[in-house]
Amino acid sequence: MGHPGTGEKPAEGITPKLPTQFVNFSFFKVDPAWRRLPDDERQRGKEEFAAVVEEYAGRDDTMILSYSLVGLRADAEFMLWRISKDLRVFQEMTSKLMNTGLGKYLTIAYSFLSITKRSVYVDKMDPTNPNPRVYIVPGRGKYLFVYPFVKTRDWYQLSFPTRQGMMDEHIQVGSKYPSVKLNTTYSFGIDDQEFVVAFECDEPRDFVNLVQELRETEASRYTLRDTPMFTCIYYDNIMDVLNTL
Amino acid sequence: MGHPGTGEKPAEGITPKLPTQFVNFSFFKVDPAWRRLPDDERQRGKEEFAAVVEEYAGRDDTMILSYSLVGLRADAEFMLWRISKDLRVFQEMTSKLMNTGLGKYLTIAYSFLSITKRSVYVDKMDPTNPNPRVYIVPGRGKYLFVYPFVKTRDWYQLSFPTRQGMMDEHIQVGSKYPSVKLNTTYSFGIDDQEFVVAFECDEPRDFVNLVQELRETEASRYTLRDTPMFTCIYYDNIMDVLNTL
Amino acid sequence: MGHPGTGEKPAEGITPKLPTQFVNFSFFKVDPAWRRLPDDERQRGKEEFAAVVEEYAGRDDTMILSYSLVGLRADAEFMLWRISKDLRVFQEMTSKLMNTGLGKYLTIAYSFLSITKRSVYVDKMDPTNPNPRVYIVPGRGKYLFVYPFVKTRDWYQLSFPTRQGMMDEHIQVGSKYPSVKLNTTYSFGIDDQEFVVAFECDEPRDFVNLVQELRETEASRYTLRDTPMFTCIYYDNIMDVLNTL
Amino acid sequence: MGHPGTGEKPAEGITPKLPTQFVNFSFFKVDPAWRRLPDDERQRGKEEFAAVVEEYAGRDDTMILSYSLVGLRADAEFMLWRISKDLRVFQEMTSKLMNTGLGKYLTIAYSFLSITKRSVYVDKMDPTNPNPRVYIVPGRGKYLFVYPFVKTRDWYQLSFPTRQGMMDEHIQVGSKYPSVKLNTTYSFGIDDQEFVVAFECDEPRDFVNLVQELRETEASRYTLRDTPMFTCIYYDNIMDVLNTL
Amino acid sequence: MGHPGTGEKPAEGITPKLPTQFVNFSFFKVDPAWRRLPDDERQRGKEEFAAVVEEYAGRDDTMILSYSLVGLRADAEFMLWRISKDLRVFQEMTSKLMNTGLGKYLTIAYSFLSITKRSVYVDKMDPTNPNPRVYIVPGRGKYLFVYPFVKTRDWYQLSFPTRQGMMDEHIQVGSKYPSVKLNTTYSFGIDDQEFVVAFECDEPRDFVNLVQELRETEASRYTLRDTPMFTCIYYDNIMDVLNTL
Repeated sequence: MGHPGTGEKPAEGITPKLPTQFVNFSFFKVDPAWRRLPDDERQRGKEEFAAVVEEYAGRDDTMILSYSLVGLRADAEFMLWRISKDLRVFQEMTSKLMNTGLGKYLTIAYSFLSITKRSVYVDKMDPTNPNPRVYIVPGRGKYLFVYPFVKTRDWYQLSFPTRQGMMDEHIQVGSKYPSVKLNTTYSFGIDDQEFVVAFECDEPRDFVNLVQELRETEASRYTLRDTPMFTCIYYDNIMDVLNTL
Repeated sequence: MGHPGTGEKPAEGITPKLPTQFVNFSFFKVDPAWRRLPDDERQRGKEEFAAVVEEYAGRDDTMILSYSLVGLRADAEFMLWRISKDLRVFQEMTSKLMNTGLGKYLTIAYSFLSITKRSVYVDKMDPTNPNPRVYIVPGRGKYLFVYPFVKTRDWYQLSFPTRQGMMDEHIQVGSKYPSVKLNTTYSFGIDDQEFVVAFECDEPRDFVNLVQELRETEASRYTLRDTPMFTCIYYDNIMDVLNTL
Repeated sequence: MGHPGTGEKPAEGITPKLPTQFVNFSFFKVDPAWRRLPDDERQRGKEEFAAVVEEYAGRDDTMILSYSLVGLRADAEFMLWRISKDLRVFQEMTSKLMNTGLGKYLTIAYSFLSITKRSVYVDKMDPTNPNPRVYIVPGRGKYLFVYPFVKTRDWYQLSFPTRQGMMDEHIQVGSKYPSVKLNTTYSFGIDDQEFVVAFECDEPRDFVNLVQELRETEASRYTLRDTPMFTCIYYDNIMDVLNTL
Repeated sequence: MGHPGTGEKPAEGITPKLPTQFVNFSFFKVDPAWRRLPDDERQRGKEEFAAVVEEYAGRDDTMILSYSLVGLRADAEFMLWRISKDLRVFQEMTSKLMNTGLGKYLTIAYSFLSITKRSVYVDKMDPTNPNPRVYIVPGRGKYLFVYPFVKTRDWYQLSFPTRQGMMDEHIQVGSKYPSVKLNTTYSFGIDDQEFVVAFECDEPRDFVNLVQELRETEASRYTLRDTPMFTCIYYDNIMDVLNTL
Repeated sequence: MGHPGTGEKPAEGITPKLPTQFVNFSFFKVDPAWRRLPDDERQRGKEEFAAVVEEYAGRDDTMILSYSLVGLRADAEFMLWRISKDLRVFQEMTSKLMNTGLGKYLTIAYSFLSITKRSVYVDKMDPTNPNPRVYIVPGRGKYLFVYPFVKTRDWYQLSFPTRQGMMDEHIQVGSKYPSVKLNTTYSFGIDDQEFVVAFECDEPRDFVNLVQELRETEASRYTLRDTPMFTCIYYDNIMDVLNTL
């Protein structure tokens, strides 16, 4: 597993070979009034929404993954994880989504905006690692655990070797959980959080154990905020997600 | 009584003999508009909701307990405590609940998701205790007191023997209240809190005394958050709960 | 005046001669849509609500006092202070209230649940005081000032004599305001706060002076939270309260 | 300018020659649905509301000043600053206001309740000052800047001469801005804040400079909370305020 | 780039040659019900809204820039950045906007009010800089990143040379990002925050790198709050913004 919340310096002089990806996690909630509409109207609304999702998922420069949180969270029901070369794609796509039959009854409960970046911390568990996190390749695990992340201001005042040392400890713990795949993206200045971390995993118990074990690392003391934490169930078809509403 | 909020390490090398249980506490609130519907429509809506609850309660791998908080809490009116081997059962069941006549007028005010785990702290009051908390067997006490729980980050930096010592003190206090039965579950990484603690008890006064007495233990200083705290009245029949709305 | 926020230990070995009272303060807010209903429908709704209040006020084991906060507070309009031997009375009564013509347009903005307990701190200003606060006898002062109260965790780590000393100072200040009558109840574990304090007084100026003077006591430093603070005007007739809506 | 947030001791032995004034700042927000009503219905609603305001403004024992915040604040649109000898006047007046055509579409976003008191800090810039703040005489400046104010608990532990010293520094800075007129009122125990401060001024730039300069005084370190901060535009006619909606 | 969050002293004795500008950032959100209106009614509503914006943009003393946040933020959909010599222009304009066909379905999610001021910190990277920030000349960059900003109270207790030193470090880092243009305005006393900072930039990645790098400066430790952070896409035509809804 990689290392979330590292607070690395921007990569001075190192140009990523792949273009920056823009990333957005949008969490939606449906107005209960929608459930009181006739079934055929609801079906039409879902189909219109799904059509927009499929249109954008089919683009070369964009990836869309869909998840349901129904029954697992009070304030959000489904989520779209969107990755694109162009920030404006998110705007264009959301305009269309909110104007579908279903979209007219949706509110966006949470939205996290971020970009991909290379980390300057060396991954000593895997020194040949070309540091893939500058380009996200989602693994489509059964579950996705997502949360916004903020370090304390004191973390940034520590010397770089100190922070590298704490990241070494963090990475060591993570390596005991090879079934957990981490995606870290950066939100400094463009949204309320500093990072967004998204963990793909097939077994929630493994993830609970990992997070609990990480509590004992030194770096954990420098976490200012790591909530809300979302447990999301992956579906490879958007209609299956919408049918959980 | 057991020990809430222990922040134990994951059980390295110790495999629970029983499978992991997934646990969910969902707190519901009805739209006042529902109370303005005709009585027969309300009755039908409640029956549809109850039928879904009974369907899932009848499954071998799932347990559902229902409670009312009407008159005891401002922002939630009833609660379902759900225990299952499969996380997806919660999703499937909630989809169905929210599409019943009553469900179409409900919002979920709070939802807490957790799993069962074995604690590594020895229970010195009862050394032969096989540590039953890895498998929840609810006792169906008259009242259930539930709250999400988070320790401070400093707690996790204390050495394990120090924490074991504080848990010893905590367990000693709890043992003076044999009428209070604790269920601790773990939410690290899968929800906003670290633990969810649920206390079954027939006499609220006992629980108030216990919690007040625990304030004086050393471990109490390491509590970051233990609210909101819900007082729930148990009913062995879901319709009795729905009839308090 | 008595002493709020004392964080006393449970009374080991001392059995109160009077049964525990359960206490609830429910603060209600009406949907503006109710004000747009025809006058006769509003009148009927208020009468139904008042009838339930009078039914429960007439029981031997229950006391109900009603207050209006209209014009004094943004987020709550009236309050019922309920005292009963049985917690379930609150549930039963609220079910009925919320199903009256007025109740169908109400939300409960705040609810505080607590019990009565004996304090272990000696009231040195009045050593013969049999410590009446284990049983509430409301004085029906013109005004009631109510707030939930939480001490810091550090308070509970102080030795008992230290806390008794601080309570002595607190009680001394309070004794300068004999026109202010305090009712302290305990919420540890059963609601978000630790205590609920309710001060009866005929002159708000006296209460402002008292609270400002208490700021200078040592114990004041151990207050974690004492808001929201509600100013409530007493009416001896529930219809007079409902007519302020 | 006078001195806000002083945390003075109650005036022992000094009786104000003028009766206590009760003060209330009510901030209103209109339901967007009201804007969708026919123009003549809206006009009628505004006239009914204005009539109630004028009825109470005409009483000998009551003063009402009205302000608009439209375009300057997201969560409040207009405000009534009410001063009366009798707290119950606020209740009676608000009941009537909320039942007017406009009132039936209003919510009260914020309400601050306070009383007038004499400060024990000497105003050394003006020793002959009979300390007029025990009786508010609003100056009807073009702008009113209002906020609730809370000092830290540590402030109250400082010795009185220390606090007097800090207030001297504070008053000195204030005296450089004679165009800013301060009204301080006291809310200890009767509302969430400790003080409400209302500054009358004709030039917002002067007030920004004053507040920024005050940041450098020692007393500023003991501010726990001084938000939300409202910028309000004065109108001498309530209908002009309502016509900004 | 300039320096945000400097907490400078008011400019004693230095009169700005240009008049004070008043600045307002209003973030709007549309009621989903508006999306359910017939297309022609929605079109009319947008045209009415656009007409008001163009009327005020055409005034000599006022500048209006419009942005969309659809798909980038959960709780706000578009924003108007307004600059005027007269605060009352904001009030007048918002009254008209909220009464257009679209305005009747809008709520204002956030509003930030501020003024322009000269900074007393010397910009040592550019000593001949006549300090243009006393008068905003927006550059119309593709993206605008806006956030309210508050320094800790401790910052204001540091000596002026200390703060100048920290600002030197801050300015040095900023100078590495010439593509980011900063506008700092002052809200002390007139809104909840102390400053509002608005960064114009054509490449979000540059801004993320800048903010992350600034985390390591000493001044960063004195940030109390710098959220919420809004990413806004610029459109030179208001209708293009409204068409993203």
